[in-house]
Amino acid sequence: MDYFSSDFKLGILGGGQLGKMLLYETRKWDIYTKVLDASEEAPCKVACNEFVLGSLLDYDTVYSFGKDVNVLTIEIENVNLDALEQLEREGITVYPPTKSLRTIQNKATQKLFYVDNNIPTAGFQRFAYKSEITDSIKNEALDFPFVWKVAQFGYDGQGVKVVRCLEDLEELPSGECIAEQLVPFKNELAVIVARSASGEVKTYPVVEMEFHPEANQVEYVICPARIPEEVAKKAQKVALAVSEKIGQVGLLAVELFQTHEDEILVNEVAPRPHNSGHYSIEASFTNQFEQHLRAILNLPLGNTASKLAGIMVNLVGAEGHTGPVIYEHLNQVLAKKGVTPHIYGKKQTRPFRKMGHVTIVNENIERAREIAQQVKEKIKVIAKE
Amino acid sequence: MDYFSSDFKLGILGGGQLGKMLLYETRKWDIYTKVLDASEEAPCKVACNEFVLGSLLDYDTVYSFGKDVNVLTIEIENVNLDALEQLEREGITVYPPTKSLRTIQNKATQKLFYVDNNIPTAGFQRFAYKSEITDSIKNEALDFPFVWKVAQFGYDGQGVKVVRCLEDLEELPSGECIAEQLVPFKNELAVIVARSASGEVKTYPVVEMEFHPEANQVEYVICPARIPEEVAKKAQKVALAVSEKIGQVGLLAVELFQTHEDEILVNEVAPRPHNSGHYSIEASFTNQFEQHLRAILNLPLGNTASKLAGIMVNLVGAEGHTGPVIYEHLNQVLAKKGVTPHIYGKKQTRPFRKMGHVTIVNENIERAREIAQQVKEKIKVIAKE
Repeated sequence: MDYFSSDFKLGILGGGQLGKMLLYETRKWDIYTKVLDASEEAPCKVACNEFVLGSLLDYDTVYSFGKDVNVLTIEIENVNLDALEQLEREGITVYPPTKSLRTIQNKATQKLFYVDNNIPTAGFQRFAYKSEITDSIKNEALDFPFVWKVAQFGYDGQGVKVVRCLEDLEELPSGECIAEQLVPFKNELAVIVARSASGEVKTYPVVEMEFHPEANQVEYVICPARIPEEVAKKAQKVALAVSEKIGQVGLLAVELFQTHEDEILVNEVAPRPHNSGHYSIEASFTNQFEQHLRAILNLPLGNTASKLAGIMVNLVGAEGHTGPVIYEHLNQVLAKKGVTPHIYGKKQTRPFRKMGHVTIVNENIERAREIAQQVKEKIKVIAKE
Repeated sequence: MDYFSSDFKLGILGGGQLGKMLLYETRKWDIYTKVLDASEEAPCKVACNEFVLGSLLDYDTVYSFGKDVNVLTIEIENVNLDALEQLEREGITVYPPTKSLRTIQNKATQKLFYVDNNIPTAGFQRFAYKSEITDSIKNEALDFPFVWKVAQFGYDGQGVKVVRCLEDLEELPSGECIAEQLVPFKNELAVIVARSASGEVKTYPVVEMEFHPEANQVEYVICPARIPEEVAKKAQKVALAVSEKIGQVGLLAVELFQTHEDEILVNEVAPRPHNSGHYSIEASFTNQFEQHLRAILNLPLGNTASKLAGIMVNLVGAEGHTGPVIYEHLNQVLAKKGVTPHIYGKKQTRPFRKMGHVTIVNENIERAREIAQQVKEKIKVIAKE
C-alpha cells in the first residue's frame, strides 16, 4: 500500500499530547489521519484530518471508528480491547496488536507475562480486591513496605503508591491490584524498542531518569544514560526480549530498574511513544514518533542513534497554582543554546499537571545537564493572577 | 504579550508548503493561527486553527482577515500591500513590515534599493514595457545576452529567462521588467538572516546550491557551503547589510552569486522562510520556521549553528508524468541513514512541479553528499498508471 499518495487512512485512538506529536509526522508525510478522543479540547483536534468525539472505552464507539480506517494505532493503552479484537477479525490492521495490548493493559497480567517468559522483574502478589491485601498482611504472607499498583487504568503516576503501614491503604481504591516488592535501585532506566510489522527491530540508546533528591519525582530524562557500557547492553537485551516475546508492532517503551548489584529488572512497559523518548525529536536521527509510524506502516525503520546528547525536562504545574496557565520566564529559557520548549496546549494548570516539556541538546552531555538545570530552575508554570 | 497562553492570534497570509512547515512550530508552542489562502486544497488547511478562503491580492479580503489578528506574517510575498499598510496604520503588527515587502515585491524596486544602498548586485536596466527592450537593443543601449525578469509576481523560476536573441523575447509577457547583466559565477550561495522586532540579528551558515551540470537546475542545497572561510564571511556580511538596510523583521533569505573573482553579488531576496533553509529542520539547533516565529514575536533568537552537515534534495515531478502522484522507491530511501522525506501533499504531479523535499544529515558532509545523490537517483515522482 502506498501511504503517501493513495486513499490510505490512519486511525489513532486518543488525541492527547502524544498523538499531537505523532501528527507532526503524519503531516510531514501527508498521511491522512482520523482521531478519536473523549474531549472537545483534545490537542489533536487541530492537525488531524478527521476528529471524532467519543469514549475510547466504549465498544460501539471504538468499533465504528475503526471500521473506516486501514491501520489503527493508539496513543494511550486504555482503550476498548474487545472492539479492537473484533476489528482485527474483520481484517483491519491493528498495531500494536490487541494481544500485546491485553498483556500490557492489566498490570497483573503484565507481571505474570514477565514471570512466564523469564523476564527479570520485582516479585509481586496479585489481589482481586484490596481487602485481600489486609488479610495477607494479617496472615504474614505480605510484609511492609511494598508498592501497591492498581491493575487497570492507572496513568501518569496515579494508581501507584508505596505502602509502609495499614493506614497507607485507606484511601486507595478497592479493586484489582498488585503488591510489588519495593526494590532499592541505583538508577531508573528506559529503553525504547521499535519493531515493524515485518519483524525488523531497532533499539534506542538507554536513557536515565534523574530524580529530585527529596521530592522523589523524575526531573530529567538523560540520553545517553551515564552508566557502564555493559549495563546499557544488558538493559537493551532485556528490552528486546520483552518486545519480541510480547509480539509488539510499533514502539515499546520499557522502564527498568538498575539495582545496586547492576541487575536489570523490568518495571513496566508502554506500547507506544513515551515521555522517555521525547528527547528524540531534537536529538535523534529518527524521532520516536516517526519511528512508530515507520513500524506500524511496515516501512524500513530509521536510525536510532543520536545527533547530540539530549536531556528532557518535564514542565509541570507549580504547587499552589490552579487556573489559566502562564509560562513564566520562557523567554529567558529560549535564549539558551539548544533549548526547545514544547507546550501541550492545556489551558488550565494545577499542581504537578504535565503541561509540556523542554528538550536541551548539546555536543557535551555535562553542559546539556547544566543548561537543563538552569531551565528547570528558571521556568515556572503558574496560574494567571 | 504572552503568546503561549493568552488569546493571542497569529495571522498567516498564504497556506502553501512553507506555511505548513511554519504550522509545525506554532503547534509545538500552542500558538493560535489563522491562515488565508485562495485554494480549498491549501496544505495549511489542516493544522491551522482557522482557515479563511480568499485571494491574497484582494484589498478587502486581506484587510478584513488582518483586522482580527495580533501579529500578521506571510509565507509568500505576493500579497496586497495597500491592505497591509492600512492594517499597520490601524495598529496591527505586520512582520515583515510592509515597507520592506514593497521594496522586495517589485524586482525593479528591489534592484534600485541595492544600488541606493551600495549593495553589490549585477548591473541592470528597468523597462516599463517589454517593447522598450527592443528599442534599447536597436539603439545599442543593451546587448545580448541578458537576463529578463518580470518585475512583479514571478515565482519559482517562472518570470526569469536568459535572452540571447530577439526571438527569445517573443513569448514573454509585455509588462514591467528588468534586463540584468548575465554574470558568470562560480557558485550560487544563500544566507538566511533572522532579525527580530527588537533588532537582535543572527545569521545562518552560508549554503551552496549545486547545479546539475547539464540541466542547469538546482539539485542539492548543501550546508555548510564548501567555500573558503573568507568568502563565507563576505557573503554573510553582504546578507546582513541587506537585512539591516531593508529594515527586515523575520527571516530574510538572500540569494547570492560568487563570481570567478570571489566577488559576492546579491541575486535576489525572499522575506520569509525559504527553500534554501529547509535543511535546518533536521540539521540546525533552531530551524528556520521556529526562528521566523521567534523573530516576529520578538522572542530571543535561537542558535543558528548546525548539529550536523545537511543536504536538501528537491522532489520534483518527473518529465512525462502528469496525474495523481506516486513516490516510487520511497521505501528504499527511508532505509538510508539520516534521510527524512517531506511530502507537501499535492495530489497531482506534473513535470518539474515541487512535490516535496528530502533532507540528508550526516556527521560527514562528503558522506551526506553521496547519500543525497543516491536519494536523488532512486526516488521518482511519477503519475499513477
